[in-house]
Amino acid sequence: MQFKSFNPPVRTLMGPGPVDVHPRVLAAMNRPTIGHLDPAFVGMMDEIKVMLQYAFQTQNAFTIPISAPGSAGMETCIVNLVEPGDKVIVCVNGVFGLRMKEVVERVRGVPVTVEFPWGEPVDPQVLEDTLKANRDARFVAFVHAETSTGVESDACAVSEVARRYDCLTIVDAVTSLGGSPLRVDEWRLDAVFSGSQKCLSSTPGLSPITISERAVQRIRDRKSSVPSWFLDLNLVMAYWGSGQRAYHHTAPVNPLYALHESLVLLSNEGLENAWARHRKHHLALRAGLEAMGLRFYVQEHVRLPQLNAIVVPHGINESELRRRLLEEYSLEIGAGLGALAGKIVRIGLMGYGSNVKNVLYCLAALEEVLSEMRLPIDKGIAERAVHAALG
Amino acid sequence: MQFKSFNPPVRTLMGPGPVDVHPRVLAAMNRPTIGHLDPAFVGMMDEIKVMLQYAFQTQNAFTIPISAPGSAGMETCIVNLVEPGDKVIVCVNGVFGLRMKEVVERVRGVPVTVEFPWGEPVDPQVLEDTLKANRDARFVAFVHAETSTGVESDACAVSEVARRYDCLTIVDAVTSLGGSPLRVDEWRLDAVFSGSQKCLSSTPGLSPITISERAVQRIRDRKSSVPSWFLDLNLVMAYWGSGQRAYHHTAPVNPLYALHESLVLLSNEGLENAWARHRKHHLALRAGLEAMGLRFYVQEHVRLPQLNAIVVPHGINESELRRRLLEEYSLEIGAGLGALAGKIVRIGLMGYGSNVKNVLYCLAALEEVLSEMRLPIDKGIAERAVHAALG
Repeated sequence: MQFKSFNPPVRTLMGPGPVDVHPRVLAAMNRPTIGHLDPAFVGMMDEIKVMLQYAFQTQNAFTIPISAPGSAGMETCIVNLVEPGDKVIVCVNGVFGLRMKEVVERVRGVPVTVEFPWGEPVDPQVLEDTLKANRDARFVAFVHAETSTGVESDACAVSEVARRYDCLTIVDAVTSLGGSPLRVDEWRLDAVFSGSQKCLSSTPGLSPITISERAVQRIRDRKSSVPSWFLDLNLVMAYWGSGQRAYHHTAPVNPLYALHESLVLLSNEGLENAWARHRKHHLALRAGLEAMGLRFYVQEHVRLPQLNAIVVPHGINESELRRRLLEEYSLEIGAGLGALAGKIVRIGLMGYGSNVKNVLYCLAALEEVLSEMRLPIDKGIAERAVHAALG
Repeated sequence: MQFKSFNPPVRTLMGPGPVDVHPRVLAAMNRPTIGHLDPAFVGMMDEIKVMLQYAFQTQNAFTIPISAPGSAGMETCIVNLVEPGDKVIVCVNGVFGLRMKEVVERVRGVPVTVEFPWGEPVDPQVLEDTLKANRDARFVAFVHAETSTGVESDACAVSEVARRYDCLTIVDAVTSLGGSPLRVDEWRLDAVFSGSQKCLSSTPGLSPITISERAVQRIRDRKSSVPSWFLDLNLVMAYWGSGQRAYHHTAPVNPLYALHESLVLLSNEGLENAWARHRKHHLALRAGLEAMGLRFYVQEHVRLPQLNAIVVPHGINESELRRRLLEEYSLEIGAGLGALAGKIVRIGLMGYGSNVKNVLYCLAALEEVLSEMRLPIDKGIAERAVHAALG
């Protein structure tokens, strides 16, 4: 066999994630591997937990990264909390709500879906109507920042309704963590999962989660065993917990170095500053896109700054657009998923990638390619709009 | 918060894994991250599949790395194959057999354990007696290379018995893949899982698996849905398969670069050469250890060359020994697990770490520390024995 080392092309990653990884985070990936039970490693694990508490804005002791991607974080929350027969109200306004419904079914929970149009947020009033009709519901699952559409739901309001009906909340914060306000304790969210490769701008493969005391109690009170050994939080927390650590699995050592470094960057910048930076570059991108005549898919007041869903202009072939950006500019943006395939593109401005260089580069590339695809655009109009927006 | 970058100590890793990572593999970890749906990435995924087929010695189309550590690979095999009520004969001769039993219980399978003394291999005759008494068994689960004791079971013989009773085999090859003979097709094994951080000497966090056509058919014929969404092989294979890829989760991009590089190294060296190298350095280590008067825990004919379990000499405090090796030599060796805690230490000679430098360094460090702990050892005797063994 004649296989050779793989040397990836250098891309600018402005899709839904992974996004551009901070050079310091990438450098952390190839620090020397040490044992996962090494005292030095255990000390680093403790720091990760504290920095994740800060990122999630929580005091929850159960705040750790799961050793697998975000979809495993989703499964961790559901598999530990939902017992067979438990009714779960699942709010669906995009791909990731649908996925939660599927995971609930896998653990033999009983999902009741509340559907909202894709691109619109969860309506707490509609949720309340559903809860009134399902007094035996035990959980409300929803997506805080829907990566498939770029819409933000009011997690605080949804949580408030859920609590009034004595439901615990299971919250997808994969795209919000580190990019826009997420206040786990203040909003009293119960089981929240995220991903390393979005606004933390680390490499993909880890899923930070946090579990409230109320949810921990629910796990302890389970009648049946957790149907996954790998994701069983009783075992995972004995490994990540304080005091004597019990061997569970072998932690992904180097990716945890990277996550640690990304959290150091976030804590040094300050969470509110990071949120403000995401907002600033979103507004700059928006100015440029609108100057070119492009439209957002999501209403302004519920738009996520880190995930910009743009309506594909009439007459433009979406897959050709993305292919040309990739081939001619080595620039990756995201396709629409599911019902939105071909209708929107998704531009991520996440973490380290939320910077003026990426904004200008993306707009310049779009301007050129769309012009060549015969969309009439005044040359330089987007750039001028960006400079005006940034002041 | 005043957190700083984490700079790990430089260790020599000679425990049960992670072990010393090849510098080329480590370098691959910080190549620029690209999108997991990027055509260049998809091409790399295809190469990984082909090289894993070579490493496993199989033509199985279902041969991929699971995006999580080895214990998730174990869970993948069991959760996809074993349906509620299915009887699984689980051979237990160490920690990892016990773990398989637990995972079978989690998916509501019915485990029937066959116990063997720790440090001894699975006895196919005893297994056959159990199968005779359990004609309704559908699976035989066993550990090919028991990482907790360093014993190898005859996977070919076990498989042959299992097939005679119409059982599929579920095989833990975490420590054998790449280090000692493993011939999936010739031995007709059905579901085999491994880990990236052992004899492939990559970083921990990925679990290569391979599934036979017979086992794939069993998964397709399931009456119930797979109780894990994240590990559902129908979905995972649509992501890793040929043709149009369906988005499932976000692959851990950089760790897959590392796995790819480790497989390039293995295919360039040649599998049989890698096995011979592991054997050669095992014999060198053994010569040195025996010259110092140390004894192996496992009988010679079933010893794994890559995982050397050594009986802790009378009067030596095992945890102090390991602590001093770590603090004074930055050398990690492994503790005994479970019933063997305090009684054995485990010395890994895996992958890149199976080299003469590590053999000599480990023996020199052991000689010095054990002497200071008042075990009488002739200075230099181990080194001379190594040179004699290497010829």
